[in-house]
Amino acid sequence: MFSFYMPSHLYIGEGSLKKLSEIDIPGSKGLIVTTSGKSVKKYGYLNRVQAFLEIQGVKTIVYDKANANPTSKGVMEGAKIARENNCDIIIGLGGGSAIDTAKCIAAMAVNPGDLWDYIESGTGKNKMLQNNPLPIIAIPTTSGTGTEADPWAVTTNERTKEKIDFGNDKTFPCISIVDPELMMTVPKKLSVYQGFDALFHSTEGFIAAAANPISDALAIKAIELIAKYLPRAAADGNDREARSNMAVASTISGIVESISNCTSEHSIEHALSGFHPDLPHGAGLIAICIAYYEKFLDISKDKYIIMAKAMGEDIEEYSDDKKQYAFISALKKLQLSCGTANIRLSDYGVESEKIGQYAKSAYDTMGELFDMDPRRLSFDETCEIIEKSLK
Amino acid sequence: MFSFYMPSHLYIGEGSLKKLSEIDIPGSKGLIVTTSGKSVKKYGYLNRVQAFLEIQGVKTIVYDKANANPTSKGVMEGAKIARENNCDIIIGLGGGSAIDTAKCIAAMAVNPGDLWDYIESGTGKNKMLQNNPLPIIAIPTTSGTGTEADPWAVTTNERTKEKIDFGNDKTFPCISIVDPELMMTVPKKLSVYQGFDALFHSTEGFIAAAANPISDALAIKAIELIAKYLPRAAADGNDREARSNMAVASTISGIVESISNCTSEHSIEHALSGFHPDLPHGAGLIAICIAYYEKFLDISKDKYIIMAKAMGEDIEEYSDDKKQYAFISALKKLQLSCGTANIRLSDYGVESEKIGQYAKSAYDTMGELFDMDPRRLSFDETCEIIEKSLK
Repeated sequence: MFSFYMPSHLYIGEGSLKKLSEIDIPGSKGLIVTTSGKSVKKYGYLNRVQAFLEIQGVKTIVYDKANANPTSKGVMEGAKIARENNCDIIIGLGGGSAIDTAKCIAAMAVNPGDLWDYIESGTGKNKMLQNNPLPIIAIPTTSGTGTEADPWAVTTNERTKEKIDFGNDKTFPCISIVDPELMMTVPKKLSVYQGFDALFHSTEGFIAAAANPISDALAIKAIELIAKYLPRAAADGNDREARSNMAVASTISGIVESISNCTSEHSIEHALSGFHPDLPHGAGLIAICIAYYEKFLDISKDKYIIMAKAMGEDIEEYSDDKKQYAFISALKKLQLSCGTANIRLSDYGVESEKIGQYAKSAYDTMGELFDMDPRRLSFDETCEIIEKSLK
Repeated sequence: MFSFYMPSHLYIGEGSLKKLSEIDIPGSKGLIVTTSGKSVKKYGYLNRVQAFLEIQGVKTIVYDKANANPTSKGVMEGAKIARENNCDIIIGLGGGSAIDTAKCIAAMAVNPGDLWDYIESGTGKNKMLQNNPLPIIAIPTTSGTGTEADPWAVTTNERTKEKIDFGNDKTFPCISIVDPELMMTVPKKLSVYQGFDALFHSTEGFIAAAANPISDALAIKAIELIAKYLPRAAADGNDREARSNMAVASTISGIVESISNCTSEHSIEHALSGFHPDLPHGAGLIAICIAYYEKFLDISKDKYIIMAKAMGEDIEEYSDDKKQYAFISALKKLQLSCGTANIRLSDYGVESEKIGQYAKSAYDTMGELFDMDPRRLSFDETCEIIEKSLK
């Protein structure tokens, strides 16, 4: 038995931002959440969002201090502003950080206590939200997190170094506008990191214990698109077709996260970048992916072959007992063609001596993802994955 | 640009009916809508639904007079019962007729006037619903209509012979339980008719002007599953694996209808069975499909090849300029293997003399589907499709 639930109304494609001036907006006073980064202002995205909403009589104010990863501090500050200004809708405009902060603000604007009271694992207090979050609109300006089509917000506890997903059925965006025109200016490195994040949402969702026929079909589509278009988007940021297809693929991968699940690859990376905030999530995933996927070469043989084909590998070149290795080759080739083949964890300060600590954090914070792996990884195997990805 | 919206919470797989005793039910007094057919009582499905809901304190009453296709009369009668008994949730249990009637009752229980006031085309008055329909739970007992994952209810006007889709974003079921255990007893003929209906939701959605990468991925998955499992379900109704996969495929095809669109194949068939109520929808589709799909052999060549491959055709057997014919062959083979290769419209009273009338009705009632075809069919071509499918 499996379930499917992804209630966000998605508008995807060039020019879709304009939909904000046409569709029903479930609120009349919006808090637009962005990070302190300059691009949404510099490129006029913020102005356009405000102008389109204004046409419908939706007034907006801006909170532009979302942290690079949502923390209690930023979220509670934004929630206070939302309350004080009687905002009835929260609009996340930007990358994953802006949108995830918007999701958390939507919850905390109408619930008592602190964000961390509602975090389900780690040092979170696992309380239930008493009131439904305010409606959320997600307007991503990068292709990768999939947060526009999932309920999750990756939150960080700076004190304990924890990175933990927050969210439930009520924190799906009600509307998501995925307009690749807003993504044309993303720098190459970030585009590639994010593209790989999207890839892994689908590869993990495909091998996960929660995989089902619907998530399988979507995951393979996303994997195909990313293998084809990420190298092009990396080579030329102005390649509109590549940017458009990456936007689609990222959103599809978000749906995959919602209806299948991520696996421990994500909890291991979140543990690492929880300790080393300068390690971008996508870079961390790229660094560990080969060691991670090598763990399931046997048990996920058939699925690896399907993914390798979707990535354009010629399976016939491999002997019958080695065909699953084509997926590992495909991952390596994609890294090469995107110029990210040499990312090592030690470049970001990850230390050999602390491997046990990182691994422990992976189990403590998002440990349930280990249940999603094709087979249970032992603690030592988790350490080994990090060790192999160090240098 | 495209949009994705399918907010129903789907629970799919053997044993999923039990979910009714576990998940949040958005109501406390349910009207269960069934047809006068005996199977939901005889096989205990109705009792089980009531018992599972009772566990959660949800009381139910039963309206078991849904027409084989929702008509104003049946819908308005059910809506009155819902109102008089203060029902706050409507549960459709059965095939498409029961669930589609439930959708209409959910709307008319809380809105003034007659169902036909709200029908958008034909002789409908195209009024807007003033109030949101009551929440709807769909529990299909057949695999085919996809109504559990789309907002549509096919309504019939007995006087004018019109068959027209009713529905909007508010008539998606909030919960759909797709439990193949409830489908094991469907007779062979109906199983096959419904299976082909599901197939055409996906093949139409795949070639439709509204097709998009998400609907494409899902459509191909459903086409694959149906080509593989429908002959097995037809050969042995107790084949649990085949029944399960047909249930999944039918629901996926419902999602495809929601996010892509049906094409004029459906409006032509609805026109025919509007005039000839004894013509089962699936049988009508089977009768016209070859003549219909032959119209787009050139313009949809690439898509036909992809569909043929998904249906297991060996494309290499066809010369380069004929590869798209593999899809027509695949359709014919599937009909043969399901024992429905010889369905002709004249078997159901469709008359050569009335072809112009049928075609006119197709344009008058669900004419917008002609805009979804890969190219616009002329009136004469529509007549020709019916003519070729007569005898």
